[in-house]
Parts: sequence; structure tokens; C-alpha cells
Amino acid sequence: MSIFTGPEYDPKNMIFRRLGDSGLRVPIFSIGAWLTIGQTVQGDVVKDILTTAFNAGINLIDTAEGYAQGQAEVEIGRVIKEVGWRRSDLIITTKIFFGVGRKGANDVGLSRKHIIEGLNESLERLQLDYVDIVFAHRPDSSVPMHEVVRAFNFLINQGKAFYWATSEWSARQIEEAFHVADQYNLIPPIADQCNYSALNRARFEVEYAPLYKKYNYGTTVFSALAGGVLSGKYNDGIPTGSRFDLHKDEFKDTVEKLGGPEGIANIEKVKKLTKIAEELGCKVGHLALAWAVSNPNTSTVILGASKPEHVTDNLKALEVLPKLTPEIHDRIKAILDNEPASEKLWFGDR
Amino acid sequence: MSIFTGPEYDPKNMIFRRLGDSGLRVPIFSIGAWLTIGQTVQGDVVKDILTTAFNAGINLIDTAEGYAQGQAEVEIGRVIKEVGWRRSDLIITTKIFFGVGRKGANDVGLSRKHIIEGLNESLERLQLDYVDIVFAHRPDSSVPMHEVVRAFNFLINQGKAFYWATSEWSARQIEEAFHVADQYNLIPPIADQCNYSALNRARFEVEYAPLYKKYNYGTTVFSALAGGVLSGKYNDGIPTGSRFDLHKDEFKDTVEKLGGPEGIANIEKVKKLTKIAEELGCKVGHLALAWAVSNPNTSTVILGASKPEHVTDNLKALEVLPKLTPEIHDRIKAILDNEPASEKLWFGDR
Amino acid sequence: MSIFTGPEYDPKNMIFRRLGDSGLRVPIFSIGAWLTIGQTVQGDVVKDILTTAFNAGINLIDTAEGYAQGQAEVEIGRVIKEVGWRRSDLIITTKIFFGVGRKGANDVGLSRKHIIEGLNESLERLQLDYVDIVFAHRPDSSVPMHEVVRAFNFLINQGKAFYWATSEWSARQIEEAFHVADQYNLIPPIADQCNYSALNRARFEVEYAPLYKKYNYGTTVFSALAGGVLSGKYNDGIPTGSRFDLHKDEFKDTVEKLGGPEGIANIEKVKKLTKIAEELGCKVGHLALAWAVSNPNTSTVILGASKPEHVTDNLKALEVLPKLTPEIHDRIKAILDNEPASEKLWFGDR
Amino acid sequence: MSIFTGPEYDPKNMIFRRLGDSGLRVPIFSIGAWLTIGQTVQGDVVKDILTTAFNAGINLIDTAEGYAQGQAEVEIGRVIKEVGWRRSDLIITTKIFFGVGRKGANDVGLSRKHIIEGLNESLERLQLDYVDIVFAHRPDSSVPMHEVVRAFNFLINQGKAFYWATSEWSARQIEEAFHVADQYNLIPPIADQCNYSALNRARFEVEYAPLYKKYNYGTTVFSALAGGVLSGKYNDGIPTGSRFDLHKDEFKDTVEKLGGPEGIANIEKVKKLTKIAEELGCKVGHLALAWAVSNPNTSTVILGASKPEHVTDNLKALEVLPKLTPEIHDRIKAILDNEPASEKLWFGDR
Repeated sequence: MSIFTGPEYDPKNMIFRRLGDSGLRVPIFSIGAWLTIGQTVQGDVVKDILTTAFNAGINLIDTAEGYAQGQAEVEIGRVIKEVGWRRSDLIITTKIFFGVGRKGANDVGLSRKHIIEGLNESLERLQLDYVDIVFAHRPDSSVPMHEVVRAFNFLINQGKAFYWATSEWSARQIEEAFHVADQYNLIPPIADQCNYSALNRARFEVEYAPLYKKYNYGTTVFSALAGGVLSGKYNDGIPTGSRFDLHKDEFKDTVEKLGGPEGIANIEKVKKLTKIAEELGCKVGHLALAWAVSNPNTSTVILGASKPEHVTDNLKALEVLPKLTPEIHDRIKAILDNEPASEKLWFGDR
Repeated sequence: MSIFTGPEYDPKNMIFRRLGDSGLRVPIFSIGAWLTIGQTVQGDVVKDILTTAFNAGINLIDTAEGYAQGQAEVEIGRVIKEVGWRRSDLIITTKIFFGVGRKGANDVGLSRKHIIEGLNESLERLQLDYVDIVFAHRPDSSVPMHEVVRAFNFLINQGKAFYWATSEWSARQIEEAFHVADQYNLIPPIADQCNYSALNRARFEVEYAPLYKKYNYGTTVFSALAGGVLSGKYNDGIPTGSRFDLHKDEFKDTVEKLGGPEGIANIEKVKKLTKIAEELGCKVGHLALAWAVSNPNTSTVILGASKPEHVTDNLKALEVLPKLTPEIHDRIKAILDNEPASEKLWFGDR
Repeated sequence: MSIFTGPEYDPKNMIFRRLGDSGLRVPIFSIGAWLTIGQTVQGDVVKDILTTAFNAGINLIDTAEGYAQGQAEVEIGRVIKEVGWRRSDLIITTKIFFGVGRKGANDVGLSRKHIIEGLNESLERLQLDYVDIVFAHRPDSSVPMHEVVRAFNFLINQGKAFYWATSEWSARQIEEAFHVADQYNLIPPIADQCNYSALNRARFEVEYAPLYKKYNYGTTVFSALAGGVLSGKYNDGIPTGSRFDLHKDEFKDTVEKLGGPEGIANIEKVKKLTKIAEELGCKVGHLALAWAVSNPNTSTVILGASKPEHVTDNLKALEVLPKLTPEIHDRIKAILDNEPASEKLWFGDR
Repeated sequence: MSIFTGPEYDPKNMIFRRLGDSGLRVPIFSIGAWLTIGQTVQGDVVKDILTTAFNAGINLIDTAEGYAQGQAEVEIGRVIKEVGWRRSDLIITTKIFFGVGRKGANDVGLSRKHIIEGLNESLERLQLDYVDIVFAHRPDSSVPMHEVVRAFNFLINQGKAFYWATSEWSARQIEEAFHVADQYNLIPPIADQCNYSALNRARFEVEYAPLYKKYNYGTTVFSALAGGVLSGKYNDGIPTGSRFDLHKDEFKDTVEKLGGPEGIANIEKVKKLTKIAEELGCKVGHLALAWAVSNPNTSTVILGASKPEHVTDNLKALEVLPKLTPEIHDRIKAILDNEPASEKLWFGDR
């Protein structure tokens, strides 16, 4: 194609999974803009990060209208244009809910007005005709579910998104979205962008369990390192320039907990996991990423990065994945000692 | 029609049939790009072939994104533009599934992403606003059927195709497509592009039988000469430059069978059919083409050609058609001796 | 439960599985009437067989209107009454299609008339108010699917059956039944009664694969010993009084094949399997039954018996089940050497 | 079955056809009660007529609430009980619309009230639990179609009829019934009881043509002898005791026409057909019956009889059927010279 000028995509040794019950294949590691792109990171560094990711087989770029109040999308759109990647080589996801900091009552949330106007503005910032997936960045219980589902279907039928998804919705809310989709013959969401790590398991492993079984619901996982705790970074307190230091407000609760009994116990677990990581020839962060990906209900784990080297380093988790034998899993399980209780089966497994 | 400058279409003595349960009339012989256009044949020869076909009443041109990795579409698009045919005089069909050779996990198959991006790129190569029919070039059991049917409906609703169809799908998969279409109030497919010849009958005549009855399903038949075997070309081995010689990989299984007991028996049948052809004053290939067309469930038979003369020669089958009396059909049936067993009726025709 | 006088049901060490996507739990081994009860076996022996089965935990009794032209149902009904089992302790299944030998055009098949009249007469013979499952004993392509599905739903809505199921239907026909059920808001079938054994695998393992995945379709397996071939009974020819001897017409094709190359090869396989059975301390028939049950898509395996001892003997397969380690499975797989090719995935497991 | 005491049904050489798109097989000749049973014929003669029919393979008995104001049903019910036929051996059809002569405004027509109360009373008179088919004996444009279709579905869901059908409805009214059935997920009718003979062809052959194609609509034909004209009975005027003599009011229009130019021309045709009948070794009435049955859209032809011999005589038409070669059909067509013009195809058979 004469119009195609950028570098050709080569997935290398990246692994792909179907995202939920869709036909879309996503790399098991993605690159996300949250807290970095457009905020602590701008300009050429963004290009370096995204190029490093793309060259390593990561072709899913995750952003949101609310990341850096729109600047994340602006940066990503600029880089895509500068590098000249072919559109079909990329999976671009954005999220609507938080707006970009304007003050109007309709500038946030999941009204039909904001969903449609929000994505239109996102596409302008991204300089794209469509995203692959548009997420509802949070549930909005103030809007009837049929309005929400219909608005996302409107965007899909306009060709402005191929799929829609949820983020941090409860299982009940997702069930309601499927209910409404069936009732009005609409397309249901395909995945939830959710918090999941070895230190944060209940919603992902238990609350969502019926959704995996009934709807083959997908997940795009963030905070797989628990904000860095699982990288060992906070083993001796909060270093200057670290995520918890830079985003004190965002992580207020987490940081407070870090000094409490649960936080101290978690640090102990990280230290024990570090020994297993050493046996496997990797860092504890790689082990934690591989552990999150090894759950078959994880579709992709989103990596954050403020330098290209972060991407390269995190991807070492790909090499750890085949080393997670049942025996290693058992040892990790014993160290974590935090398996959430499953939904009660009143008669067991008759 | 001031913008119209090309030659006017005259169907001549071509015969037309409705394509399945649609209102579209297709010529009983079509011209296809598979294995020739954009690959072994390029430039002016393509124009000569398509012009010869058009002038003989063949106004259906069949191609696919995967034929010669996109080059078939490029060649056809160029010729259409150069000759200046009126769009409404042409029936253009393409197929999405195999991609054009790129390496991404989403560059092939029937995800919503590839169906939509794939046809958009096909239309660019063809320099057209729409095709008449877009085919799913193969089934993709890794994608939920509702996603597949919805994506083809999206293309129809965008005006980028008038109809959608399947190719080499099983009867169960086609039934499933109708199931989903009924369930979600979507447009079902109208035809299957399938392999059918006097030497390959089971799927067409038996597996698809309920589809003809229930859905009036159409067929666009390829390999009606069984890759050339029914033209007598391989009676004395595989000649240099023949289809089996040029496309050894594509026809590996067939070529291997050719030397086995089934292949030898088939060659014997071709020799006996040749005598009938001589009685009717035609070549055995014409007889085989007319035989395939004489099945009322055949909507069109796609002809391949690497020279304009191939088209002209093949169309002699039109003259053979009225000569296929019940008596001739009986003699052919006896020679073929390969009528597939129909689906078991446990009580016969009560 | 003053009205209850019969022996209490004790499942013992029987294992139970949900039958397809229903909530009904069935024992992994059932007792069937085919070819024996009401035909070669009558009176007290039937009572002995059914009592032996019940006492061993087998509480599913499978019959059909066509077994011994209604006499199988008459015998079973009589025994149930004589023994005084509590109705809820039993799972009774029957099948409609073949009638009981009368000559009318409506005395067989799946017309609404025969489905309803047929089950009414079955219930009279069984002296029951309802069966647990009514099967369509064969497909009937001469009746519109909506009539078939509606008639079985009528029976369920009348309380004359709790569930309906199919027997020896093609995957396309089952898909069509779900299509119609969805279209008209009717209850779909839950399982197919089908032929499956280590020597007969294609339909069960490949053709039905999408049904397990999409609909969690259940199976009630018959001929798990391939008519006795897998018990080693025919290793040295057909003994007098054996199933193939007594039912020459029914097994005509099988018996003919037995002497051909495929049959001889199969006998060889049985001999090799016998050695594995000996290692595991069981007979080859037990191994074959356990192998069939070990497929997670098998809901229950129906056992035939003409003596109570047959039931007791066959149930030794329960002890073999835990001995089927992955290693044993691999050795069986190598001996069988008949794994059916799965449906073609054009791009593998992208 | 101990409860079964009557003679066993033997279809003999009767031919069966599916009734429209249902799975019900009906004999191509049926026995009807109109104008005879319960009116001119009562008591033992009715038993003789029905027994003669049953023994000749005719197991469909057609009646209506309005035939002899309920007396037809009373007679038929009595005979069925006296003879002791098994219910499933019989196909019993009745019709609701005309009531039984009572004066209330709700005693006739197709209100929900009369459809349900009417059939309940019919079943009482017939001493049956259900009929096989309940017909709407005429259209009732004063009742909304959804009420009509729902009422017949109520009867089917109560088990009081297996199927419902129409009689003398226009094609538009039948289309409306299908429309309503689809809209409300109800069972549509399967056939129309209609007037069809060599002298009365337009509605059957032209108006209903789209219904055969779209819905595979069935027909139960009456007046296949045009009230006797086609038997040659009126060739020399109206004999005493003939149908036109006995039912002057019913046939007023027909009798008046008989003396007009059309009637005279028809008598001429009957005379010419008589010669063909003689060549075929039968009477012209047999030829006319066979001609009506030879139309593939005829499901069954209802025979009237006031003596058992009428049945026996009319069934000679079965022997004529195979003698209706294309050549004979052409000669009949030329004599009749009344082929109705088909629906206009504006572009012919493109």
C-alpha cells in the first residue's frame, strides 16, 4: 500500500490471547498511559516508550480521556502519526468517564451525551477514525443501564469503536449490562479493566468467576505489581520519585496501609517471593507479572513505563512464564496465603 | 450518465440465476482471480481476460484479499478503472480471512477488527466504494458467531457490501449463522463458495441439502473441473505449466491422490466421459462444466483463466447445457458411479 | 412418606455428573433395556437386573417405545411397581420415534401427533405419570424442526417429561433445534444418546465438539464396548448366544466389518489393550468402559445386561477409573491409533 | 395394550402425503361428513361407510360443528366408540365457525369465546379428548386476527388439537395469520380446506401459489367432483335424489349456472373427458378425482358418501393416478381450456 510508510509489525515471541468472548487477539502484555504518558513523561520519551513496546510485539496501547486530562491521548496520537504505524497493526483502547477536567455537569460520567461527545473528542486528540475498544472507565449508577449500553452500541454502529468494555464495574453491574443487551438486542461489553495482583485477588478471582464461566468475560489487568509493592521497591520505605511518592493523593489509602499490619505482612511475603524469583533467575517483579498472566482469566496485563527500559525490563516476565510449574505455583500459594474463599456451594461438587 | 464512458454491458446468451434467496441475478459462469490474476497473470493480460469475459456476458468478477496477497484486487481495480465499466454493470465479490501476508494475530480470521479493516483495505486496492458480496473466506471457530454475523452486517449497513456469504463452511456453521441472524435480527449469508465437481460431490449434494431446502442457500462453485482433472489435462501425467505443476503446494493432497487407486479410477472415468463429450460435439471439460451448472443448486460456476482464450473456450459449455438430456445424465451417472449417500431417512419417504 | 414402601436408594460409591447444561445429576453408569429387556430377558430376571443395578447406585433406567416393540417399557413398568421404588429415586428415560410395530404412517417419526401419542402410550406401558427425559430416538428430516421442538416442549409443559433430548442427531440438526428453541422461546434438548467407544470416535469427539463448547451438550453413551468387541468376546470369532449372534440383522454391517481389514486390526488392538488391563488388574471390557467414562463429555455410559452378574461385573470399571493416569491414557492412545482429526482451524491456535 | 380392542389399522395401498409443512401424514383420499353423515345418513350406514373407508386405508375423518348442526360429530363419535378403533390410528378433524343452530350472537364465528367453547362441545359430541386438526371453518373479519390465532393456539396448548387450519380463507387472510403468529410467537395454521376441481381452479392454483412456496401450505380439498358435475351425473339434467336436488339451497348458484352458457360448456367438457376416462378404463369421476390428487399442492381429497359403495367406487381413482401421464395431462388441459392466469411477473423469469 502506497499510503503505508511506517515500520512493519512483527509480534516476535509475544503471546496472544482472545480478549474475552471476542475474536480480538491481544498481547498478554500491553502498554498503558496511566500516570505517566502526557503527565510525567512527554515528547520524545513517549515515542521511545511506544516504539520499544511495538518492536517487542506489544501492539496494544491503553489510554483514557482522563489520563493527564486528555494529554495522554494527545501524546499517543502524535507518536502514531509521526512513526506512521499502520492502523490495523495497532490495538488502541481508550476510556470515557472522567472527562478532561472541564466543569460542566455533563462533562463526566456515562450519559449518552458524554459517552458520545467524549469519544468524539478522544478521537480528535488521538487523530484517529476509531479506537479498537472504548471502555466505560467506571460504572455510573446515576444513568439507566439501557442508556449506557445503547450509547456504546451507537459508537460501535458508527464505526468509532469495534468493541466496548467496562472498568472496575461490579459483577452485578456487568450482569445488568448483559441483561439490557439481551433485552434490546445490543452488543454486550467484552472485558473489564480491573485491578489484579498477588496481593489483591478477591474481585478478580471470586466476584468475577461467574462472568468468566457464563460470558467468557475478558480482563485487562492493571496494578499487577500492586503499585510497585510486588517489585520490592517499597521493601524499605517509599523512595523519592517512586509512584507512591509522585502520586501521593492517588495512592493515599494504599500508602497508609503500607505501614499497617497488612502492609508489613505483605512486605514479608514479597521478601519470601524474592527468594523464589532468585531461584528462577529473575526479579520478584517479573515473577509477580508472570504470576498474574498465568491466570487463564487474565487477557492482558497492562504495563506502565516512564522510560523505554521499563518496558524491556518488564518483558523479562515472558521468560518466567514457562517456569511457573505446578510446584512453583504451590509454593507461591503457600507464601501468599491469601486465597479468597469461593462462592459457597451448598452441596459441594455433587 | 455523463460520467459513464466505458463499453455498455450486453449479457448476450448468458443465463442468469438468482443467487440463493437474494434478488441478485448472477451469470451461471463467472470469472475468478484465484491462482492466476495478480500472480501468474498481470498487466494487460488481466485486462484482456476480464474484457473477454465481460463481452461474453460474464459480469461477475470474483476475488479475495488473500489472492496473490492483495495483488489480485489491485489488478482488478486497475482494469475496472482503465476500461471504465459502469459500476452497476459489474458484480464484484471479494473475501476476507487470509489477509495479505502480514504477521499480526489480527491480520487474519473473522474478528470484527479484521473483517472491517480487511474489507476497507480490499476496497482501497479495488478502488471501489463497495463490493456486491463480501465472503467469509473460511469459518473461524475461534470467534463467536454473533461477532462474525454482526461484523458483516456492519459492512452491509455502511454500504460497503450489498450481501455477505460464506466459503467452505460446514452445514452446521451455516445453520449457526442463521441461528444468530434470527436471534439478533441480522441479515444472514446468501451463499457458500464451495468446491464442487463430478469428482467431488458429498458436501455440495448431501451436507448442504438441508440448506437448499430450508434457506434456499446459493452456491458459487469453484474447481468444477477438479483442478483440471476433468479437462483431461492430466490423463497422461502432470504437464509442465499446468495448475498442478505451478501450484504444487496448494494441490499437494490432490496431486498425491492422482497417482493412487482413486486418482487412477478418476482418470478412467474422465476417459469414458470424453466419449460422451465427443458424441455431443464438445470437449470433456465443457461437459464437466455444463454438468456442474445443470445442478439447480449451482448458482454460478467460477472459471479461472490465464489467457482470454480460456474464457472463450470454457463458455462453449453454454452450448452443451441444453444437450444434457435425462438420458445423457443417466449415462454420466453410471460412469461416475460416485453418487453420495443422502442423509438417512429412517422410514424412507413415508 | 407413608405411601413409600420400597427399598431406600443408596448411591454407594457411584459417581454423578450433571447431564449437559441441565441440573439433573446422572450416575456415570446407567442400565439400558436395548436388545435385552422385554426381548431376550423377561419376568423375574428383569427384576433381578434392575434391582442389582439400583442397589449398586445405578438409578437411571433407559428404554424406548421401540425396544422389543413396547415390551421393554411394559417389563420396566411392572418391576418398578412390584419393587415399590420411590419415583424420585429413579431417573427414567424413554425414546419416541420407532413406534411399536404398527403400520400407520403416523405410528413412527417425529410428527407432533406421534411424539404426543407415542409418549402417552409409553407412560401407560410404564405405568408412570412422567419420565425424566424423553428422547427423539432419531432425527426426522421430514418434519419441520419447529414442530418437533414444540411437541417436546408441550410434553414438558404437560408435566409428562422434565427434559427432552436427541439420539443420533447430526451436529447440524442439534444446532437447528437450538436455533428454533431460541427463535420461539422454547426449551432446547439437553443431551444426545450416541454411539461412542474406543473404536468409534469421530462423531462424539469431533462433530459434537462445538456443541459441548457452545451448549454444554450432554451425552448418554451406548455401545461403549462396540457391541462387545472391546470386551474381547469376539477375539476368536462370534460365539453362540453373543449379541452379534442373537441380533444378526441389527449388527449386520458391524459383523461384516469384523472379518475385514478394519475388524482384524481392531481385534489386534483389543488384544494389546488386554495387556494394559491385566497390569491394572481388570478385564479389557472394564478398561474400555472406564476409558469411555473418562472423557469429560461423557455424561453417562449405558450398560446392557441379560443377567444381574453382567451389571456387577461391568461396574468394576468404577475401580479402574482412578487408575487411568495420563501415562496409561498415552499408552491406550498409541494402541488405538485412531484419534479423529479435529475440525480444521485455518490458523491453528492463534 | 389391554385397552385396545378394535380392528388394527392397515393402510393397504393408500398413498400418504405430509399435510402442508406439518409432520402429519394424511391419506390422499379422506372421508368427509358434509351433507351426508348425521343428515341424510344415520345409524348403521354411518358405521358401514366409516368402516369401509378405514378398511381401505382411509383413516382421516373430516367433520365440523356445523355439519347437520352437530349431528355429524355425534354419529362419528358413536361409531368410533362402537368399533373401538385405537385413537392414534385415526386422524379426526373438525371445524368451528357455524355453530350448531343456536341463536346467540356468540354461538358462531371466531371469537375466542366461540372457538374454545365450540371445540369443547365438539369434543363432547365426538366423545374424544382431542382432534388432530381444528379448522376455522371460514374467516371472520369481525374478529382481530391475533384473537383468532391465539385462541387456536390455546386449544393446541391444552392438548385439544395437534394442529389448526383454515377453510376458505383468502390468501391475504392466511398471510395475516402467519404475520400474527410470527409477531406473537404462535403456531400458524397448516392447511386450508378449499374447493378445488377441474372446473374451479383460480383460487387453488393462483391465489394460493405464494402460500405453497413460502409456507408449504397444505390443502384438504372438497368438491373435487364440482358437486357431482364431473361425475357426469348432471349431463342430462338434475336427477331426483342427487346432491343438487337434495340441497337446492346450498347449491342454488351452482344449479342456476348449470343451465347458463358456462354450465353448458362445462357439461361439454365432461363429455369429452369421459372419452379419456373410457380409454383409461375408468369412469369420468375417477379421472376427475385422480386429476385433483395429481396436483402436488393437494394434500388430500375429501370424499363424500351416503353409501359404503360410494367409498369403494371413488377409491378406484387410486388406480387411475399412475395412468395420468404427461400426455394425458396435456389432453385434459386442452379439453378444460381453463388454466387460470398466474400472478404477473413484470420481467418474466429473469
